[in-house]
Amino acid sequence: MGLWFTEKQTENFGITAKIKRTLHTEQTDFQKLEMYETEEWGNMLVLDEMVMTTQKDEFVYHEMMAHIPLFTHPNPKHVLVVGGGDGGVIREILKHPSVEKATLVEIDGKVIEYSKKYLPEIAGKLDDDRVEVKIDDGFLHIAQSEKAYDVILVDSTEPVGPAVNLFTRGFYAGISKALKADGIFVAQSDNPWFKGELIRQVFQDVKEIFPITRLYTANIPTYPSGLWTFTMGSKIYDPLKVKDDRFHDVNTKYYTREIHHAAFALPKFVKDLTE
Amino acid sequence: MGLWFTEKQTENFGITAKIKRTLHTEQTDFQKLEMYETEEWGNMLVLDEMVMTTQKDEFVYHEMMAHIPLFTHPNPKHVLVVGGGDGGVIREILKHPSVEKATLVEIDGKVIEYSKKYLPEIAGKLDDDRVEVKIDDGFLHIAQSEKAYDVILVDSTEPVGPAVNLFTRGFYAGISKALKADGIFVAQSDNPWFKGELIRQVFQDVKEIFPITRLYTANIPTYPSGLWTFTMGSKIYDPLKVKDDRFHDVNTKYYTREIHHAAFALPKFVKDLTE
Repeated sequence: MGLWFTEKQTENFGITAKIKRTLHTEQTDFQKLEMYETEEWGNMLVLDEMVMTTQKDEFVYHEMMAHIPLFTHPNPKHVLVVGGGDGGVIREILKHPSVEKATLVEIDGKVIEYSKKYLPEIAGKLDDDRVEVKIDDGFLHIAQSEKAYDVILVDSTEPVGPAVNLFTRGFYAGISKALKADGIFVAQSDNPWFKGELIRQVFQDVKEIFPITRLYTANIPTYPSGLWTFTMGSKIYDPLKVKDDRFHDVNTKYYTREIHHAAFALPKFVKDLTE
Repeated sequence: MGLWFTEKQTENFGITAKIKRTLHTEQTDFQKLEMYETEEWGNMLVLDEMVMTTQKDEFVYHEMMAHIPLFTHPNPKHVLVVGGGDGGVIREILKHPSVEKATLVEIDGKVIEYSKKYLPEIAGKLDDDRVEVKIDDGFLHIAQSEKAYDVILVDSTEPVGPAVNLFTRGFYAGISKALKADGIFVAQSDNPWFKGELIRQVFQDVKEIFPITRLYTANIPTYPSGLWTFTMGSKIYDPLKVKDDRFHDVNTKYYTREIHHAAFALPKFVKDLTE
């Protein structure tokens, strides 16, 4: 059989992937970092034993986190990514010509270092002239920012380890303050099959702070259940009322204009979590 | 760790589920049948080492196979299910008051027997007065039918073992003949992450026979990649042009009127398989 990496996505269920070779493992100051070359998914980044991204399916998460809010905002110029040290969300943000600056605040410099080394087609755009990279605590960065950003994207791990603070009402209130008066934010908010109560909590917390709160989904095969959710808080712009002339061509493999709208149509058991 | 059931969904990737106990295993005349009680998914039916259905997530597949065509057809009276011995699709069909008769043609009586025993809330409606159960070869049944059905649903296993014939142009031509002049059929057509070429082939084959051919998706966490496709062939009715007054209340956990439309919005890499 050889070497297989198994992620226990719950106590009683998991995925398992055949490994060609181990590229790197270390305990960083913040988390356990593993990088594997897999047979099925290409190179795979694992943090605290959870698959973060793979070369084969990374496009779904990165496109869906970036393009839904960036096509909703009529003129996004300055975009902040909290977490996301692999650089995939930054790469998608830069596809929008209106963006003048994209700031990445990643707490763990090792994620960036090893993503650049082993996931170059994901992390390569971190060296773009429009990108500013800060190795810093996203929670503190948000607390110190005011009316600074058009769009904020929270590309965090699950609410364990360094990301615990990023799933709190205080953090969402800070994001509102850090956004301009017409700002939009999106956070990854886990899956409805195993983490329904987390989704319900995040949605209610965001709804108390943002006039427009919406949940949308995407299929990510290496994430638990294959169905991932993103929670959006918006001060003015409704992602369901985007004018047709906002959409311009971007080179994508998942996102389309039709998917932009369809992603907000929730399966009934997921919709129930928002009510 | 105890006992875990692992399905290799590809040569190099799989899912693994903790088992409370083995309920039944046997080699039937057609396939290897296993029934487990799992910690995460409740009771789980496995055929030829592939997860067919579980108590926790079965509603997605069964609702999405039945309700999309049955709300598309304005007056479905006689519906045929090929395969589907667990009875879940039949249960959903019977939620439509127009349906006078639902015929199930399952090649393997053992699937029905053990579904009734261990998946009663899925298989229970197989004893309904409106249901006719035939233990027979679906391919032959189709070949012998003419203008008999309003809707035909092909709830087969993957194209290995007894289901090989159900993924052929000859079968789709037979289905067209077995349908009435305004008939609709839907077949499960696997996942786009690992079986893209199969989806492309099925779609092209169906398109040569049916004037309206459409692909739609649903999230099924215990199926490979979590993203499943269904291929629809329709003689007259377009699932994207269903009149609002067709939708009536059905008790569902996944399907909604919004999902009916959104399920046809395909991720770009999936849409490419249909072009």
